[in-house]
Amino acid sequence: MAKVTATMRLQFTGPWPPQSSLERRSSCDSINSFLNVAGGPVLSLPHLEVSNSFPMPAYAMSRSFNRKGANVISPHSPASMILDLLDVYEDEYDGVIIDPECLPSSTNAFVANLRTSLSYWKLKGKKGVWLKILLEQAHLVPMAIKEGFNYHHAEPGYVMLTYWIPKEPCMLPANASHQVGVGGFVITEKSEVLVVKERKCPCRCSGIWKLPTGFIDKSEELFTGAIREVKEETGIETDFLEVIAFRHAHCVAFDKSDLLFFCMLKPLSFDITIDEAEIEDAKWMPLDEFLGQPYYQEDQMLKKAMELCVARYENRYSGFIAHQLISKFDGRLSYLYSTD
Amino acid sequence: MAKVTATMRLQFTGPWPPQSSLERRSSCDSINSFLNVAGGPVLSLPHLEVSNSFPMPAYAMSRSFNRKGANVISPHSPASMILDLLDVYEDEYDGVIIDPECLPSSTNAFVANLRTSLSYWKLKGKKGVWLKILLEQAHLVPMAIKEGFNYHHAEPGYVMLTYWIPKEPCMLPANASHQVGVGGFVITEKSEVLVVKERKCPCRCSGIWKLPTGFIDKSEELFTGAIREVKEETGIETDFLEVIAFRHAHCVAFDKSDLLFFCMLKPLSFDITIDEAEIEDAKWMPLDEFLGQPYYQEDQMLKKAMELCVARYENRYSGFIAHQLISKFDGRLSYLYSTD
Repeated sequence: MAKVTATMRLQFTGPWPPQSSLERRSSCDSINSFLNVAGGPVLSLPHLEVSNSFPMPAYAMSRSFNRKGANVISPHSPASMILDLLDVYEDEYDGVIIDPECLPSSTNAFVANLRTSLSYWKLKGKKGVWLKILLEQAHLVPMAIKEGFNYHHAEPGYVMLTYWIPKEPCMLPANASHQVGVGGFVITEKSEVLVVKERKCPCRCSGIWKLPTGFIDKSEELFTGAIREVKEETGIETDFLEVIAFRHAHCVAFDKSDLLFFCMLKPLSFDITIDEAEIEDAKWMPLDEFLGQPYYQEDQMLKKAMELCVARYENRYSGFIAHQLISKFDGRLSYLYSTD
Repeated sequence: MAKVTATMRLQFTGPWPPQSSLERRSSCDSINSFLNVAGGPVLSLPHLEVSNSFPMPAYAMSRSFNRKGANVISPHSPASMILDLLDVYEDEYDGVIIDPECLPSSTNAFVANLRTSLSYWKLKGKKGVWLKILLEQAHLVPMAIKEGFNYHHAEPGYVMLTYWIPKEPCMLPANASHQVGVGGFVITEKSEVLVVKERKCPCRCSGIWKLPTGFIDKSEELFTGAIREVKEETGIETDFLEVIAFRHAHCVAFDKSDLLFFCMLKPLSFDITIDEAEIEDAKWMPLDEFLGQPYYQEDQMLKKAMELCVARYENRYSGFIAHQLISKFDGRLSYLYSTD
């Protein structure tokens, strides 16, 4: 299995690949400045397109790696022959990360540079190759696939392709595996639960009074997401108290897994204003009436979750509270959820 | 925010889009069988490529939607003009899901059919369009992007593109947002903790004795993942006891969020066999020595998590246990984690 351990992951402070922990191996230097640094003459040389099996000499390899569009003179080639390598970062796992901002826009140049670079990385013993292609560079996607790349993940605006060089099984970390949702159990001192009917619910819960629920936003805390969803759907302001329980299910949206956190919230306001685009109706419902709906009685999972919420309301149960703590590795605050 | 509520999600029993809840709207019928069903003559007609703004008549719309490559005769067109629509499923959110297995392989036909279909779906008041393109169809990706599609997500073997038709903000559900990891706290009756040193740890925990950790596999339970990781790294067999705590961090791998579950496990064997590819060393370490490492003392987050593990070991703390429960909606078992 592709694996990055928890403690390894703790160090990353920004987007993956972790730029902060990477050595920037090139900076779009021109061939002239490269050759000057190398002590050689300043030359103006044409490009050479090479095949995938091009045997790159050690000299070229050692000099070209940390250059953008590294135009490298081979000692076995006439001075008129030079090579283009793609601009990359290196990672600590013997991987290379191609810089999307420095990709050639010409399809031919891209293919040629990619082939040359792959040959070079193979000789260098590199393992994983990461190729991020922006939306506006989509014409390069079929070319990269033809050269043996596969999809790894995508987000609006880009697709990430990978290539695993070694003969051994691929060890690249997998894409995100889970969606995370929150449900808000909001109950008054008079045992009234905040419930909603969804406007467009195609499933079997249609017509049921249910808890406000939704996915958390990107980089949002669980408790923030629960408070926000309740506020968006019903207009009710709340404070977060505890994560009462969570459910882990598989093969849900996009064949991914799903974690749903049931959160106990304390109401701070009581006048309901529904989000009409999403919610058909919302109200404060007596607890007994809410739990008495056949929908809850007939579903083991929801019945148990609701019983725990009630137990917490009656101070017979403790869920997980949120602790904001700093971690040494990234120096950043994050939340640990536990009973104490 | 794009939103699918928890109860809605409960119904899905397979890969998303949920095939079980979708009406298969076409089945690669030929034009001849379609025209026969429609009571019309069996015709052999050439294709017509139409522009994005083609005003498709209601007749054509009503007849063509549930046909693959629906060659539809417009009442306003001569008999020689027919249209190709892409083969789709419908979803309950006024969305359409293009069948990747029925995409034309020719780029020209694909573009023509896509444009025709988009015009048609716009007239029908459709909202989101889902276009899954398989690895071997990569030549179609730039064409779809040119027509206004964007990346949604990708996995090895395919990329999913989307197109949001309405003028209002996009309501399509987002891609998976989280990685999920597990750490195994395995402790003997003699207060010895199972610890590992990772072979290739580029971060600040290098050289530290730490808990076995890793990502859970696709569709794997948390407790199964914790047991597997411990077994893989150290050869030790264990039973799962509790989720002691979990940490929620953001902007980790691929800019996604991360949930790390600290799990208490009971050892069932004691002879260590390390996974040499990943682990440099593993051993049973006295608890005091383990906790005394500066690495743990200087990290608020890990210190707290380890203190909770010790409290559980000393029966001063209760984490979440796993309940296997069936849900009415999908009729499937999943796990609810809670204190009771």
